[in-house]
Amino acid sequence: MNVITLTTDFGTANWFAGTMKGVMLRINPDARLVDLTHDIPPGDIWGAAFTLACAAPHFPDQTIHVAVVDPGVGGTRRAIAIRTERAVFIGPDNGILSLATAKEETRAIRVIENLDFLDSEPSRTFHGRDIFAPVAARLGRGERFEDLGPLTPDLVTLHWPVAIVEDHTTSGEVIFIDHFGNGITNLSPKTFPAGKDLVAMTPGGVVIPFGSHYAAVPPGSPVAVMGSTGLLEIAVNGGSAANHLRLTRGTRIVVRQSS
Amino acid sequence: MNVITLTTDFGTANWFAGTMKGVMLRINPDARLVDLTHDIPPGDIWGAAFTLACAAPHFPDQTIHVAVVDPGVGGTRRAIAIRTERAVFIGPDNGILSLATAKEETRAIRVIENLDFLDSEPSRTFHGRDIFAPVAARLGRGERFEDLGPLTPDLVTLHWPVAIVEDHTTSGEVIFIDHFGNGITNLSPKTFPAGKDLVAMTPGGVVIPFGSHYAAVPPGSPVAVMGSTGLLEIAVNGGSAANHLRLTRGTRIVVRQSS
Amino acid sequence: MNVITLTTDFGTANWFAGTMKGVMLRINPDARLVDLTHDIPPGDIWGAAFTLACAAPHFPDQTIHVAVVDPGVGGTRRAIAIRTERAVFIGPDNGILSLATAKEETRAIRVIENLDFLDSEPSRTFHGRDIFAPVAARLGRGERFEDLGPLTPDLVTLHWPVAIVEDHTTSGEVIFIDHFGNGITNLSPKTFPAGKDLVAMTPGGVVIPFGSHYAAVPPGSPVAVMGSTGLLEIAVNGGSAANHLRLTRGTRIVVRQSS
Repeated sequence: MNVITLTTDFGTANWFAGTMKGVMLRINPDARLVDLTHDIPPGDIWGAAFTLACAAPHFPDQTIHVAVVDPGVGGTRRAIAIRTERAVFIGPDNGILSLATAKEETRAIRVIENLDFLDSEPSRTFHGRDIFAPVAARLGRGERFEDLGPLTPDLVTLHWPVAIVEDHTTSGEVIFIDHFGNGITNLSPKTFPAGKDLVAMTPGGVVIPFGSHYAAVPPGSPVAVMGSTGLLEIAVNGGSAANHLRLTRGTRIVVRQSS
Repeated sequence: MNVITLTTDFGTANWFAGTMKGVMLRINPDARLVDLTHDIPPGDIWGAAFTLACAAPHFPDQTIHVAVVDPGVGGTRRAIAIRTERAVFIGPDNGILSLATAKEETRAIRVIENLDFLDSEPSRTFHGRDIFAPVAARLGRGERFEDLGPLTPDLVTLHWPVAIVEDHTTSGEVIFIDHFGNGITNLSPKTFPAGKDLVAMTPGGVVIPFGSHYAAVPPGSPVAVMGSTGLLEIAVNGGSAANHLRLTRGTRIVVRQSS
Repeated sequence: MNVITLTTDFGTANWFAGTMKGVMLRINPDARLVDLTHDIPPGDIWGAAFTLACAAPHFPDQTIHVAVVDPGVGGTRRAIAIRTERAVFIGPDNGILSLATAKEETRAIRVIENLDFLDSEPSRTFHGRDIFAPVAARLGRGERFEDLGPLTPDLVTLHWPVAIVEDHTTSGEVIFIDHFGNGITNLSPKTFPAGKDLVAMTPGGVVIPFGSHYAAVPPGSPVAVMGSTGLLEIAVNGGSAANHLRLTRGTRIVVRQSS
């Protein structure tokens, strides 16, 4: 097995993602290439990191995950590869890998410095093509992780906002708006106040009942569900919670007893 | 051969489609995964059903088609699998499979109930990942369709609007607006009035000549062509008929002699 | 190896691209299908040609590239296949292949006329499905290029705008706006004026310093970089040069000494 996933902000309209695939197939004709997404908003490192963290646990062991949202390409930021207990993650050292790797035990972090993994001197504007793709392809066909470059103890990591647990309330925030307009929060059930009749509340004072699934409330009504990522999600049945409730990344959400 | 297609409204910006692929590759590393589309408008069951019906006949025998537009996920709607004479269709029982399966002889419809086909207790918000992907992957690697769950005689089916054939006219409607703004109708040639000099007419009274291909009329002009789906299509050469002629799903189209 | 790439303006929302894949897998189950893009703006032959020319050099030898932006489908334009020193290019003879093939030595151009390569009489509206996909699939599984149809000496070619080199300036134009809003020009370093302190200038008089990479200037500032395609690119660090500097395809760019 030789699965390589791609997560980028390159969009799907240009040759960027396809070119990475050409490079990889040239080196590693048996690679199974899987797009997670190329539609991360340009420069949105957090969004890419969260996306990768949601998908990676579902992939086969030894999958190689490449993530490239890289506004600092060509500058001083390092290119790194992280081996965890069951996968390899490759990308710029700007935090993009850090939410996914936090879910697994990290075995080693290496700085990519060995030019033997590349096809030629890299450009300073497209390391997806010139560094990350050839490195992933060569690791996928069996070249040694240990040969990539020196070990490093450091990793740029993104801050995961912590839930604030008080006597009768837990507060957190929306950390991602998904394609349907659902607002995914940083709140998992273990942080919730005791009791059964919980509700979520927006900064505008909208009180949202908990429900087991999106259609547990009438069409157009808001509902707080335990989403498939294990996090509380603010949704609207058949609509966009982001639009209806003006949710954006960072919107505060409070969970409390229904009163 | 072990081809699995995907048709969803998950979009391409998040981890949903990629996660389904991870789940499938973990179970069935040899599966050939083909995206039909993930850009069905959220909740548009008809659009997904029509899309699948247009593509499925062109796939290899024994292809497994997974379609997930599933606003009722987690509620009482059933998960089903349909074996036809040459393919398998998997999805929620909300009509999404019904236009594709209507084109072939149905051999059996089963309700997906056997938890051995799943990896774990399914979430109530993402059956694409938790039910449809693992079921498709296991069928693709050779597990038995008969083991999925009980046979059922019922299937939620979508209504296909019937052409109204009168003495000198046939009337129908736009059933799909495609990427180019072409308005695909429910009208096939066998319903047309006799005679050679046919035209199509919009509710606004625009009279559109029949043509053999899009560029059979001058740039910017409307033309009615027999589309690649076997249905009459209202197009504008080099433009969007939807914009120019204000076509939407449901717009009435009448075919008659040119007079 | 049996890699087939796809470049179209079919979008990703409908069944068009997926249907081509179904056709190809039916004929050639081992084909490795790679999407370059389906998001070429409708009818934008130049954009497709440039996209294909950027990606193709990075693919394995013997890759088959299919490109379909085909407003003249069903009319008199020919369907062609071009064998170069290391690849095969297939598409309508409207210029779409001509920028990619100009980068390699052309060995033969054939008009696709042999109906044995097709599955059935082609429609007049979807040659991607009915001609280009089956031809690519059959070539990919080993059928002979020589059997496609007659040799032709002609090829519709797109005009590549030439840089105008004067005493102390070189002027060219933006030829492509990419996903990030970078304006890629037709200017390569060998056309630049002598000297080290070069700047680029827009028609509005904005003077843009050369930089080695996007982040070589402060966030929000413009920079002229040598892009990964080997062409000068006008960018804005962390922003869209197209928006900030009102660049569009055709915008004149002048390179000169910094003063």
